[in-house]
Amino acid sequence: MIHASLDDTTGETLGFAMEQLLVAGALDVSFTPLYMKKNRPGVKLEVICHRSDERKLLEIIFRETTTLGVRISESRRAVMTRELRQVETPFGPVRVKRAHWQGVVKESPEYEDCRKAALRAGVSLQAVYQSALAQTDTEGEMTE
Amino acid sequence: MIHASLDDTTGETLGFAMEQLLVAGALDVSFTPLYMKKNRPGVKLEVICHRSDERKLLEIIFRETTTLGVRISESRRAVMTRELRQVETPFGPVRVKRAHWQGVVKESPEYEDCRKAALRAGVSLQAVYQSALAQTDTEGEMTE
Amino acid sequence: MIHASLDDTTGETLGFAMEQLLVAGALDVSFTPLYMKKNRPGVKLEVICHRSDERKLLEIIFRETTTLGVRISESRRAVMTRELRQVETPFGPVRVKRAHWQGVVKESPEYEDCRKAALRAGVSLQAVYQSALAQTDTEGEMTE
Amino acid sequence: MIHASLDDTTGETLGFAMEQLLVAGALDVSFTPLYMKKNRPGVKLEVICHRSDERKLLEIIFRETTTLGVRISESRRAVMTRELRQVETPFGPVRVKRAHWQGVVKESPEYEDCRKAALRAGVSLQAVYQSALAQTDTEGEMTE
Amino acid sequence: MIHASLDDTTGETLGFAMEQLLVAGALDVSFTPLYMKKNRPGVKLEVICHRSDERKLLEIIFRETTTLGVRISESRRAVMTRELRQVETPFGPVRVKRAHWQGVVKESPEYEDCRKAALRAGVSLQAVYQSALAQTDTEGEMTE
Amino acid sequence: MIHASLDDTTGETLGFAMEQLLVAGALDVSFTPLYMKKNRPGVKLEVICHRSDERKLLEIIFRETTTLGVRISESRRAVMTRELRQVETPFGPVRVKRAHWQGVVKESPEYEDCRKAALRAGVSLQAVYQSALAQTDTEGEMTE
Ligand code: NI
Ligand code: NI
Ligand code: NI
Ligand code: NI
Ligand code: NI
Ligand code: NI
Ligand code: NI
Ligand code: NI
Ligand code: NI
Ligand code: NI
Ligand code: NI
Ligand code: NI
Repeated sequence: MIHASLDDTTGETLGFAMEQLLVAGALDVSFTPLYMKKNRPGVKLEVICHRSDERKLLEIIFRETTTLGVRISESRRAVMTRELRQVETPFGPVRVKRAHWQGVVKESPEYEDCRKAALRAGVSLQAVYQSALAQTDTEGEMTE
Repeated sequence: MIHASLDDTTGETLGFAMEQLLVAGALDVSFTPLYMKKNRPGVKLEVICHRSDERKLLEIIFRETTTLGVRISESRRAVMTRELRQVETPFGPVRVKRAHWQGVVKESPEYEDCRKAALRAGVSLQAVYQSALAQTDTEGEMTE
Repeated sequence: MIHASLDDTTGETLGFAMEQLLVAGALDVSFTPLYMKKNRPGVKLEVICHRSDERKLLEIIFRETTTLGVRISESRRAVMTRELRQVETPFGPVRVKRAHWQGVVKESPEYEDCRKAALRAGVSLQAVYQSALAQTDTEGEMTE
Repeated sequence: MIHASLDDTTGETLGFAMEQLLVAGALDVSFTPLYMKKNRPGVKLEVICHRSDERKLLEIIFRETTTLGVRISESRRAVMTRELRQVETPFGPVRVKRAHWQGVVKESPEYEDCRKAALRAGVSLQAVYQSALAQTDTEGEMTE
Repeated sequence: MIHASLDDTTGETLGFAMEQLLVAGALDVSFTPLYMKKNRPGVKLEVICHRSDERKLLEIIFRETTTLGVRISESRRAVMTRELRQVETPFGPVRVKRAHWQGVVKESPEYEDCRKAALRAGVSLQAVYQSALAQTDTEGEMTE
Repeated sequence: MIHASLDDTTGETLGFAMEQLLVAGALDVSFTPLYMKKNRPGVKLEVICHRSDERKLLEIIFRETTTLGVRISESRRAVMTRELRQVETPFGPVRVKRAHWQGVVKESPEYEDCRKAALRAGVSLQAVYQSALAQTDTEGEMTE
């Protein structure tokens, strides 16, 4: 993970930097509000990436933000295995991600599919989520 | 109270603006972290002031920050009456603020006095606070 | 709504104050992180209450926190009408709140019921929620 | 301004709601992190809008989020007058917003123009901003 | 320490997860507000635990939250040695934690004892704290 | 980096601690808002320092704050090389920091110089920044 603490980059510039980092292959980008010296509201930028993308992402961070130095750390990970499958809802097909870890099983409908179905059908995002999850229930898939 | 939501002012500039606003008579200035559109970390600036200082403070806000418009609202207040008196501590004299409101009484040592005493005596800020509060106890002033 | 900005009350004290305010009838209590002068992380306390409870809640705020003054403001409200009914889930009965506003209808299972059912059955909170919402679907209640 | 405090709406849903609110004519939408009862991280949703859009936006808020009630408040405003004009930069034309308020004059390049120019030219957003602002300097427009 | 960044778990669910994690032996659980992609307010969950509890706590995180992967990191610690003793206050007995580290000594009254005494005596939490700390002063324990 | 999570230190005390840590050689000090158990708003204190200053800074943290234990971690760094030079602006001389990293070059005017010039000349901080940056442009230094 790449970290930088910023007190002189604007929100507009940070929004642009996030967009560039995601396009360039960052797995995740987030901002955390930070109180810095001299009463400055700052932001901690965190970027999660494959080691092989590190140099390319550092270039974006150094070019777009005002930071003069970043910290880079590694950590162990614990991840659930995942598989995607599709369910039919009254609002159209939605892919659902099914995740496993040592007996824990859970399912979550794909955001982009739900978003499109909700806009197309004129219903709430929540209505599509519930429909998609109800399908997985009926088909008995949460009981392993 | 004057409010402005900012997504393109840097932390450095906001720290400078706070300093200017306080010098110009603002009673209180604060920042709140804000999530704004296009993934921009922003800041809500809030300034509490006497009505008569409003114009002067607006000028600082418009000059120093990027905001193009602010909102101004009024509200009722409920305040405790206050009086200052001085107590002697092992670290030197410290003023203590005593506040009343319908049977509630509380005392708080003045920050700047405690800060100076702590630096002078090489003890923690907390040690000075406790000493000052202990004086008020001994003198029986929390029981009204 | 009652507001106070605090820079010298501890988190422990604020947690205690929230507990006291809720016991005394506050409808809602929240904290917002705030950047205050002299590099102080502060907290904005907000309390929503019936006008008739205001005096009692002010007393708690003045007694438990360090604030010397609060602001009080009123605002218009727009609310959904609500009714509670009960559904049966594989994890036991759960009350579901059904809310209406000009054609919008939505349902949300009661947190405390779901919490108890989840603990009793040894399943996740989410599993109980989904079960309760699935019941409302089957019974056709989201379509008005 | 419309306010709602939310402790059971997901970040995904809030991102979707912001998108819908902006499409439907909200002038500004923001989120503030909130600490709510029972150790719940919540979010305060704030929407600024023309009075005439209020009903339409309330419908989105009630449909997409879990809130059962919102508060609506009005406030005075102080705004700078604005005018847009275009400057030429080495990276292409950029519109610059010029704002006035009682002797204060400031200029800010339009974000979307700078973003497009930066992407097209392969330079940083900051480089385009500086170029655009330098044009306004050379032409003497900050001195009124 | 176990970290997870969440953008689709509700505050209600996070409050429940914190409760479960503490019951299962987590030494500390905290949430940090996070700005995530697509304008999503998110939360970073951090859990501090004994290595031997890691598997059990991961199961709770994977079961109760929506996360599909967490990061785990270790760090050196520097800790003060502690001892508990009891003091008598006008509001009843209160245990005080006394901590040492290379010449630094400090004392802090136990929150749960103070809370109970304050509720029983009908005084503020702060009044009990001050009383307990005043006892330690009188007995000369802050001077080593 | 030294980390501590605090739920019973006041904002006033934290502002004082930041001041002491910076005087004692900390390279950077920041606070992050944290949601801790029992509904407590807390603060994560982070201190970046040379390894040789660690002991001295730990003493300040243990003396001034309520923490009983901190975590210490190391990380790789990626830094830009820097050089300072001076430019002349209509508001007086300002030093500008020029930073390099593998083809990326950027310049940022020194905050303290800009602050002093702005106060002296009665113009906005932004006006001085822009002037200083315009000088670096004219002299062609951003093109390498
Ligand atoms: Ni990959
Ligand atoms: Ni998702
Ligand atoms: Ni006055
Ligand atoms: Ni104070
Ligand atoms: Ni009522
Ligand atoms: Ni709820
Ligand atoms: Ni309009
Ligand atoms: Ni802008
Ligand atoms: Ni242990
Ligand atoms: Ni404690
Ligand atoms: Ni050095
Ligand atoms: Ni700087």
